[in-house]
Amino acid sequence: MKLSARNQLKGTVKGVKSGTVMAEVVVDVGGQEIVSAITQGSVERLGLAEGQEVTVIVKATEVLLAIE
Amino acid sequence: MKLSARNQLKGTVKGVKSGTVMAEVVVDVGGQEIVSAITQGSVERLGLAEGQEVTVIVKATEVLLAIE
Amino acid sequence: MKLSARNQLKGTVKGVKSGTVMAEVVVDVGGQEIVSAITQGSVERLGLAEGQEVTVIVKATEVLLAIE
Amino acid sequence: MKLSARNQLKGTVKGVKSGTVMAEVVVDVGGQEIVSAITQGSVERLGLAEGQEVTVIVKATEVLLAIE
Amino acid sequence: MKLSARNQLKGTVKGVKSGTVMAEVVVDVGGQEIVSAITQGSVERLGLAEGQEVTVIVKATEVLLAIE
Amino acid sequence: MKLSARNQLKGTVKGVKSGTVMAEVVVDVGGQEIVSAITQGSVERLGLAEGQEVTVIVKATEVLLAIE
Repeated sequence: MKLSARNQLKGTVKGVKSGTVMAEVVVDVGGQEIVSAITQGSVERLGLAEGQEVTVIVKATEVLLAIE
Repeated sequence: MKLSARNQLKGTVKGVKSGTVMAEVVVDVGGQEIVSAITQGSVERLGLAEGQEVTVIVKATEVLLAIE
Repeated sequence: MKLSARNQLKGTVKGVKSGTVMAEVVVDVGGQEIVSAITQGSVERLGLAEGQEVTVIVKATEVLLAIE
Repeated sequence: MKLSARNQLKGTVKGVKSGTVMAEVVVDVGGQEIVSAITQGSVERLGLAEGQEVTVIVKATEVLLAIE
Repeated sequence: MKLSARNQLKGTVKGVKSGTVMAEVVVDVGGQEIVSAITQGSVERLGLAEGQEVTVIVKATEVLLAIE
Repeated sequence: MKLSARNQLKGTVKGVKSGTVMAEVVVDVGGQEIVSAITQGSVERLGLAEGQEVTVIVKATEVLLAIE
């Protein structure tokens, strides 16, 4: 599958915090932490767990920029 | 200023493509390209240009994950 | 690839309107039109054109509901 | 009320899973399931429950596309 | 129509800047400017123009917070 | 820090509802309530509590419009 999303980074799951509806997944991407909030249903469907290799995906329209 | 957004990565602007309403900003983050689509008005207000240091910001709820 | 996004619908591209930065892609999903606004860069990278089979993807946190 | 959002699909609520802050609402749209993650406060304010007719709304900028 | 979106503010259109695909609409909400980037197709479908009364709508999951 | 996000409104926290993963923060902005759904991790990191001054931030691409 080839996605329209411009940002796709390879990483490894560092931890999963599960809630009733939502879950928080922390991913290590080249030494930096990326945090994703997805549904707990998706965590279960993908079987996400520590150590798993994942791709972090972000649509370009969701990326803000800041300067000092 | 301290932001609620969980993902904040330092990078350098590699290029700006300006449209009438939207602009596309490519940022180098530790050797990886991150693409941001923001308004052309924001590009002008921040004075974004090649070589500038920026912070890439993404809210955790905007991050998708994928497995092979 | 298996995505965390909960909503993935099969469809066929009905039309592409290209701008400088953004593009609008209209997809027929079982007789209903779904409109996607992605970067023109992604339209070119995926080679999107009328008649092509695509999957429409929407993260659950991006779905609003309304009642009459 | 007429909304700017390009994607508005009629459906029927199949189920509601309530958390403390967020809730997951599954909607049947012409035989396909659409999942929405909204606040539990909105579920209560709209009185969402199984069998209810709802409109699923998605802004075009939130729609990703994929090809095989 | 009653929307799940938690944030709905009444305002008046101050200006519309039209691009090929996207448009920028500036809305005055109680003396403060709110900027919306929607498709040019939606601007035309709603007939948005200066002086028009509109409701600005933002899903709670799209709102970031910052402290000094 | 100067943000690309076009919408930045000053307000005061009226209440915080904490869940396991997500939290809901209600902010008073000039007499109007704005609701934000962010991770509970961000609420703790920013130390958000009633009475605190915050800035509400919304990217222009996340703002929908409606007319009667």
